[in-house]
Amino acid sequence: MPVSMSPALPTDAHIRAAHERIGPHVHRTPVLTCATLDRMAGATLVFKAEPLQKVGAFKARGAVNAVFSLSDEAAARGVATHSSGNHGQALAYAAARRGIPAHIVMPETAARPKLEAVRGYGGRVTLCPPGTRAREQALADVLAATGADMVHPYNDPRVIAGQGTCALELLEQAGPLDLVIAPVGGGGLISGTALACAATAPAPRVLGAEPANADDAARSLKAGCIVEDDAPDTIADGLRASLRDLTFAIIRAHVPAIFTVTEEQIVTAMRLIWQFMKLIVEPSAAVPLAAVLAHPEDFRGRRVGVILTGGNVDLDRLPWMPP
Amino acid sequence: MPVSMSPALPTDAHIRAAHERIGPHVHRTPVLTCATLDRMAGATLVFKAEPLQKVGAFKARGAVNAVFSLSDEAAARGVATHSSGNHGQALAYAAARRGIPAHIVMPETAARPKLEAVRGYGGRVTLCPPGTRAREQALADVLAATGADMVHPYNDPRVIAGQGTCALELLEQAGPLDLVIAPVGGGGLISGTALACAATAPAPRVLGAEPANADDAARSLKAGCIVEDDAPDTIADGLRASLRDLTFAIIRAHVPAIFTVTEEQIVTAMRLIWQFMKLIVEPSAAVPLAAVLAHPEDFRGRRVGVILTGGNVDLDRLPWMPP
Repeated sequence: MPVSMSPALPTDAHIRAAHERIGPHVHRTPVLTCATLDRMAGATLVFKAEPLQKVGAFKARGAVNAVFSLSDEAAARGVATHSSGNHGQALAYAAARRGIPAHIVMPETAARPKLEAVRGYGGRVTLCPPGTRAREQALADVLAATGADMVHPYNDPRVIAGQGTCALELLEQAGPLDLVIAPVGGGGLISGTALACAATAPAPRVLGAEPANADDAARSLKAGCIVEDDAPDTIADGLRASLRDLTFAIIRAHVPAIFTVTEEQIVTAMRLIWQFMKLIVEPSAAVPLAAVLAHPEDFRGRRVGVILTGGNVDLDRLPWMPP
Repeated sequence: MPVSMSPALPTDAHIRAAHERIGPHVHRTPVLTCATLDRMAGATLVFKAEPLQKVGAFKARGAVNAVFSLSDEAAARGVATHSSGNHGQALAYAAARRGIPAHIVMPETAARPKLEAVRGYGGRVTLCPPGTRAREQALADVLAATGADMVHPYNDPRVIAGQGTCALELLEQAGPLDLVIAPVGGGGLISGTALACAATAPAPRVLGAEPANADDAARSLKAGCIVEDDAPDTIADGLRASLRDLTFAIIRAHVPAIFTVTEEQIVTAMRLIWQFMKLIVEPSAAVPLAAVLAHPEDFRGRRVGVILTGGNVDLDRLPWMPP
């Protein structure tokens, strides 16, 4: 049974164990500050710079934790996932570090650089037609044929615990924070962040941020049940996924608010980070700063940890350039 | 006499004093590594990330050291310089931290964002016609009118000592290095770097890198006297200046080789840093990596410190984009 049907929620202890486990394989990324953005926000912002992480995104943390949690016997059969984004690269990277195969199911429509990036890390790509059904069938075929361990992009306690190591480091590096804000896609990062922060004393409040055009998490929190986005149209391509049972349960328990921001606010915040922090961030990574600037009353005078998630962009197509 | 005519060369002790002095006003920037660039170079590269420095460039170090070296009495009269680039912003920033005026002489032809950046830090801009003579006259007028202390962009022992703090930190952060490579414009950074490295045991060799289109430093080393560039045409706009007496003396004594690279090699290296390190660097900052990639035989198998100098670019005009 490679896929566990009802895994237990991860805990702070899992995050600490993950941090130990992944240490040799990921960067302890620096935290950065920026006087100009502090002035704009009226707050003290401490940015955790995950674009400087292996594979250019925090996703390396969860993938490495999942891969290095496997027994030697299970690991020998490899790992598998579906992803057209950073998780696919991260799992390929993690598997290569352990010397085992990674099978990545990707839609035929995926951008060529993303395919090449996965292959560049040694991942074995299985192409499938676009759409959830075709993707799940392709993944089921791969799992059946290989016996690989399925590593879901976010609804996996090993992945959530791995992503939680980012906030664990942030809290060590930044000292006490009033608030921590992270973007919400499928919810893996903010779930790990919330668990790490809840175990800290004093515990910072954890807030989410997502595109208004992919606001399933905010709507799910309000509705009290998982609401899915129907073909979300946002430049923040890392945040198009919907919550699943584990991430919804954790967010419901630990995240009091999720802000939504417009596409324009995302691009503005992305450019501000490039201009004033000299850090390349992808649109998804700019969503928390966009929320801070759009809702200054919620952040003014506070010490705020901001997780900058990743920096994988197409340098030939920047959103502020004419097409 | 605000301008000293024959100041003594700075020493390692000046660099250590500078490091202490500037600590409260500048960032201790992180060092970064990149597995992809290591593979490309066949070497272990440790990058000092000065784009993450105050004002986006190492120039903050020298300017802060100069400003905070002044007596209260001298400081009250302010500081002055000519600069159309990062030094102007850095001096304005440093003066603002001390609460004194900074007079920055800039050519009327300077790009609007550069003017605005200097003014944004509180600098008082004096515009002059383009050309060396008009600039020197304008600066002399400012000095006569204000009694301000002249802080040359590089031929000033306080500035050289300040720039040397960058290598001092790099050596602390990276551990033993075989080589350190830095770009050469007027020579302030590499002079400070060479002094800091020469005082370390074992001392890494310090190498320079400059655009072939602005190769005055390489030619000066060969000629044994200062050779000036005549209107150098390079995208690396931070490296168009020529050596002066202090920097030439230090480079001659401590820098065995200066590599030159083509414009194309500079743009390629700049893009590699953006793509794989997720750090925004200006063209000048990419010159050392360009040299490492162009001369692999000189770096293969070595531990190489690479100083990434700054990240101030116009995000609307990237060199790999059509105009």
